[in-house]
Amino acid sequence: MCDRLYSSRVSPTEFRAWQQGFKHAFEARLNDQLPRILNQAPPRLAKAIAYAVQDGGKRLRPMLVMLGGNTGDTHSPLPDLNSPDLQLLWTAAIAVELIHGYSLIHDDLPSMDNDDLRRGKPTVHRAFDEATAILAGDALQSLAFNLLSTATAVPADTRLAWLQLLSTGANQMVYGQQLDTTPTAVAPTDTELSHRHHLKTGALLHAALMMGTVHQPAPIQAALTAFIRPLGLAFQIQDDILDATGTATALGKTPGKDAADHKHSYVTVLGLTAARAHLNNTILEALAALEPLGASADALRACTEFVLTRDH
Amino acid sequence: MCDRLYSSRVSPTEFRAWQQGFKHAFEARLNDQLPRILNQAPPRLAKAIAYAVQDGGKRLRPMLVMLGGNTGDTHSPLPDLNSPDLQLLWTAAIAVELIHGYSLIHDDLPSMDNDDLRRGKPTVHRAFDEATAILAGDALQSLAFNLLSTATAVPADTRLAWLQLLSTGANQMVYGQQLDTTPTAVAPTDTELSHRHHLKTGALLHAALMMGTVHQPAPIQAALTAFIRPLGLAFQIQDDILDATGTATALGKTPGKDAADHKHSYVTVLGLTAARAHLNNTILEALAALEPLGASADALRACTEFVLTRDH
Repeated sequence: MCDRLYSSRVSPTEFRAWQQGFKHAFEARLNDQLPRILNQAPPRLAKAIAYAVQDGGKRLRPMLVMLGGNTGDTHSPLPDLNSPDLQLLWTAAIAVELIHGYSLIHDDLPSMDNDDLRRGKPTVHRAFDEATAILAGDALQSLAFNLLSTATAVPADTRLAWLQLLSTGANQMVYGQQLDTTPTAVAPTDTELSHRHHLKTGALLHAALMMGTVHQPAPIQAALTAFIRPLGLAFQIQDDILDATGTATALGKTPGKDAADHKHSYVTVLGLTAARAHLNNTILEALAALEPLGASADALRACTEFVLTRDH
Repeated sequence: MCDRLYSSRVSPTEFRAWQQGFKHAFEARLNDQLPRILNQAPPRLAKAIAYAVQDGGKRLRPMLVMLGGNTGDTHSPLPDLNSPDLQLLWTAAIAVELIHGYSLIHDDLPSMDNDDLRRGKPTVHRAFDEATAILAGDALQSLAFNLLSTATAVPADTRLAWLQLLSTGANQMVYGQQLDTTPTAVAPTDTELSHRHHLKTGALLHAALMMGTVHQPAPIQAALTAFIRPLGLAFQIQDDILDATGTATALGKTPGKDAADHKHSYVTVLGLTAARAHLNNTILEALAALEPLGASADALRACTEFVLTRDH
C-alpha cells in the first residue's frame, strides 16, 4: 500500500501512536487482572498461561473491541481510553484476547502446526510440555467465558450478547482450524480458502468488533459487519504473504512453513503476485463497507492501513 | 455397600429403572439436537464430536441437573421428565454433558492419560487423529457455552447463573487435570489427593447439580452444595478402586492404568482396604448432608447408592 487508499482525519502516524498507547494500557490492565483471574490455577499452569498471554502481539482483537465501541463518535475519532463510556469494554477486550491466546497455544501443538517459535519465544509446549499446553488452552477458554458471565458491573443483556458473540467466534475459529489442519488431496479453490479463513481468522475478529458495538444503532452494526469480513480475509492473505516473504526476526515465528508443510495458502494457491492483487482488492472492499459511516469510521480506516502494512 | 445406608421412598430398583428411562430420554434429545448444534461444523469434526458424545456413559451429570431441579418436590420423589417445570433444564443438561465429553477426549490424549479405549470403543484420537481430537474437545467447550448463551427460551438471569456455574466447573476441572498430569516426586497426601479430585471430578458434578437448583430456596442449595462435595469424592475413590480391581469388559476402558502409569490414586496412596473404608465414610458424609432435606432428598439418596454400586 504505497498510496493512501482512503482519507481519514487520523494519519498513520497518529494511529500508530494511539495503538502503542492502547497496547500499553491493555497490557497494564491484563497484568493487573491476571493474578485474580488465575488465583485458583495450579502454579505451573498459571505460569504457562501468563507466559502465553503477557507482553505479546499487536492486541488487534482487544483494539477492535474499543474501536467498535467508539465508532459513531465523530468528535473523538480515536477512542479516549479514559472515557467512562468505554470502561466496561475492557472486560470484553480481555476475554477475547484470552480466547485468542488459547487458539495460538493449540494451533502451535505438534499435532497441529508444530511450531517451535511464537512471538520470538519458544511456544508453550516447548517452554513447558504438551499436556500443560493443551490444558493452558483449555483453561483460557473457560476463563474467558467465566470472566464475561461473572462481570456483574455489566448489564445482563450485554453480558449475554458478548457471550453469544464470543462463543460463536471461538467455535467457528475451531472449525476453520480443523479445515486448515485436515490434509486435502487437491488444492482448495480460492472460494474454499476464503471460507476456511473467514472461519479461522475472521470469526474472532468479527466477535471482537461486534462485542464493542452491542449498544450501537443497527446501521453502524451492519456497516461494521460488512467491513470486518474482508478485513479479516485481507489480514489472512497478508499473513500468507509474510510467511512466504518475511524473516524469522521480523515475524517472531518460523517463516516459509506453509510451503514446507505442503499447506495451502493464498500464496501457494494463487502465487505471490496474484495474492498481492487479491489483498489490494480485499482492502478496497473493506474500506467501501465503511463509506456509509462517513467520518465516524476514520479510526477504522486508519486501523485498516495499520493492519495491512505490518511486517509481522 | 451390602447394607442399606439410608432409608428412602425410592428403592434401588426403582431408581435404576428411572435412570434407564432418563438416559434414554436424554440421548433421544441429544441426538435430536446434535445436527442443529453441529450444523456449521466441518464433516470430519462433526463426526468425531458425535462419536464422542453419543450413546455413552451413565449420563450422571445431566441426571444431577434434573435431580437438583426436582429436589424439594416431595410429591414426586423421582423427576417426572415430562413435567413442564423441568423442560428448560434439558438445555443445561446437554451443555454440561458437552463439557464432560470434551474433558474425556482431552484426558485420553497421548500427552495426558494416553488411553486407547473409552466406553469400550477406541478413543477419539485413535478412531480419528490427534489434531481432530484436540479440536473436537475445543469445539465442544465453545458449543456448550454457545448453547447456554443462546437459549432464548430461558430467562436471562438463569442463563447467566448457568454460564457462571458451568464455566467455573469447567475451569476447575482443567486445574484438577493439570495436578493429576504433573508428575510429583513424592506421593500426595490424602488431603492433596482430595483437593485434586474435588477439582478434577467434583467441580463439574457440583456445576451440574447446582445448575438444576438455581431457582431453589437457599437452604436446599446449601444442603446440595454440602452433599455433592463428598459424593464427587466418593465417585473418584470408587473409580480408583475399580481401576485396581475391575476388568476391561466391565469398565469399557483399560484397567490397572494408575499403577502401570505410576499415577497416584486413593488405592496407591492408601491401599485397597483403607480406600474402601474411606469410600464408606465419604458416602456417609454425603448422606448426612441430605438430612436437613428430609424425604424431599429421597431421589438423591437412591442416586448415591446407584453411583457407588456401579461396576464401571
